[in-house]
Amino acid sequence: MTLKFGLANILNENTGNVSGNVSTTMFGVYIVTIKDIAKACGVGVSTVSRVLNNKPDVSEAVREKVLEFVEKSGYIPNNSARDLVKSSSDAIGVIVRGMGNLFFSSILKTVSTEIDKSDYTMVLHFIDSGEDEVKAGAVLEREKKLRGLIFLGGRYDYSPEELSIIGVPYVCCSYSNSFGTLDEKSYSSVTIDDYLTAYNAVKHLINLGHRRIAALVPACCDRSVSQLRFNGYKAALKDSGIEFDESLVMETGGIYGLNEAYEGTKALIERDAAFTALFTASDSTAIAAMKALEEKGRRVPDDCSVIAIDGLNISHYVSPTLTTMVQPADEMGRECVKILLDILEGWGENRHVRLETALREGGSVKSI
Amino acid sequence: MTLKFGLANILNENTGNVSGNVSTTMFGVYIVTIKDIAKACGVGVSTVSRVLNNKPDVSEAVREKVLEFVEKSGYIPNNSARDLVKSSSDAIGVIVRGMGNLFFSSILKTVSTEIDKSDYTMVLHFIDSGEDEVKAGAVLEREKKLRGLIFLGGRYDYSPEELSIIGVPYVCCSYSNSFGTLDEKSYSSVTIDDYLTAYNAVKHLINLGHRRIAALVPACCDRSVSQLRFNGYKAALKDSGIEFDESLVMETGGIYGLNEAYEGTKALIERDAAFTALFTASDSTAIAAMKALEEKGRRVPDDCSVIAIDGLNISHYVSPTLTTMVQPADEMGRECVKILLDILEGWGENRHVRLETALREGGSVKSI
Repeated sequence: MTLKFGLANILNENTGNVSGNVSTTMFGVYIVTIKDIAKACGVGVSTVSRVLNNKPDVSEAVREKVLEFVEKSGYIPNNSARDLVKSSSDAIGVIVRGMGNLFFSSILKTVSTEIDKSDYTMVLHFIDSGEDEVKAGAVLEREKKLRGLIFLGGRYDYSPEELSIIGVPYVCCSYSNSFGTLDEKSYSSVTIDDYLTAYNAVKHLINLGHRRIAALVPACCDRSVSQLRFNGYKAALKDSGIEFDESLVMETGGIYGLNEAYEGTKALIERDAAFTALFTASDSTAIAAMKALEEKGRRVPDDCSVIAIDGLNISHYVSPTLTTMVQPADEMGRECVKILLDILEGWGENRHVRLETALREGGSVKSI
Repeated sequence: MTLKFGLANILNENTGNVSGNVSTTMFGVYIVTIKDIAKACGVGVSTVSRVLNNKPDVSEAVREKVLEFVEKSGYIPNNSARDLVKSSSDAIGVIVRGMGNLFFSSILKTVSTEIDKSDYTMVLHFIDSGEDEVKAGAVLEREKKLRGLIFLGGRYDYSPEELSIIGVPYVCCSYSNSFGTLDEKSYSSVTIDDYLTAYNAVKHLINLGHRRIAALVPACCDRSVSQLRFNGYKAALKDSGIEFDESLVMETGGIYGLNEAYEGTKALIERDAAFTALFTASDSTAIAAMKALEEKGRRVPDDCSVIAIDGLNISHYVSPTLTTMVQPADEMGRECVKILLDILEGWGENRHVRLETALREGGSVKSI
């Protein structure tokens, strides 16, 4: 029986707002105390306490009576006393690197909700895309006495020495350590296969007849997600016998900025490269790229197809609807919290989860 | 002198990773202890502690020497000891109502960053748009022993009785109590003037020659932001001698959903109402509405102008660029935290801040 959030009533032992009898008030919120429950059920306060704390030595009839009343009244247990005797903190740190990334908003909500469901508390900290999430995590760990950490976004090239300043279990959410030297057993990660997802996106374009395919990525060699996706792009070209053409690649800088993508696409067009399709590393940069294409007189998809990776909700509603590889954001958030809780509770060890992506066809890609 | 986040080094007294001399390691992160500082400066540990805690009885020369070394080494003070002697919690609760609202993402980052800069800790809780933020706040207040609350989104019609379950100071962020009965002195709020902003948006359309102006809003009479903006729409029509036409109004339901806006706009067009412009209550619903207009063969802005309220970054990059009334999201977040901290520190009392909005002209509106 869960008696936590979403119930109608609030127990309030301290404010003095105690109703002797439980009754609907004019504003629809009850105040119920453990004494009210005891009185209403005709038992002692300690008996109610035993029932609420799932202790033995209470008759089944009394237990049922109390629980039934509690359910009806919507009593919410006060955890303060329990908190006070806890010897260690219940804090899980979440470091969000780059809130401009719309993909992170949806994951963050899931991560927060899942931590709420547990007995832990989320301590959130935002940093900019260029900042060091590991140092931010180490500081947060000390300041808030964290039990564990979730990094929402980060570098792909950690060394064991760098990560030695993190003294609690941690999960890399939406990224892994592809370019680093961490022992797999020393950390956890939940990601998509960035390389394969980019490969499949570009393959989709090739299957529709495209051979002059441009790439708009933050960086080709940043030892991070962008490099993995760029490598997937190159591999797809190679496997189809299409020669790699450097003039079709535009690097926009590290932070998936909308304006950088918009300006980058314009610059790509001004190079006079005759591309028929554009692969972009994220949905939001694809939206900015489509804007630049349109302003330069290239209709999407008639003059140029555009494909991306993310699957944001807003991408359904831009014109044309964006064709994109969907990352399972909710599942990603849930898995991260699950792994961390398993470790903290001693139920599991570090592990690495790769989630599948799926093509969502919109109107931004056509065959030629 | 601030020595908190963003510095290069981590003090770590507990892990044993202590370097006797401060030196660059192969991975670019130093571990510096208070003992290291004392040794390097040729003073005792207690002297260093006095300097770091701004205590008197240290000679100016020693103080300068220690601070200079500290600045160079990037020592980060360990607040754990201070935390342990604190008698009350340092938690500020932030309840986000409807994370689907992209406008909230940017405010949330600012709120988080501003709370980080203070000595308080943010405890974040997400609820869905339909949930009760007051009850969620009351539960969070008890569970996390909050010192204060920021509600990011909420109802506009609180009664004093309803809010009596909140026992700490709170700030309504992005909304006020226009339809409620709260004493102004009992709470704080930071909002735009929703009525006036909608009024100005519709006036802009009227000034460009539009008279058949449709409205796409979650609800006309929800005693909330939507009703205020709808009232602003109606007032602008009235002041310009344009008769209100119910058939030009589409209510999409309470949560500013993209799909609801998309379907609502389609239904509006199917009614065969000959509108030349559309006023929408938010940027994201405007984007969905433009999609529906386009799919129904109505070009924006040639066949129909579209104006909204929010000023999201992504709205710059949709086609056509959305014309919208910009809410100052950063300023809103900063003001909320400032008000709450002022109250918690005894520097100020409850107050109400109304922020200005500004028209950002895009390409979705034209004169007729």
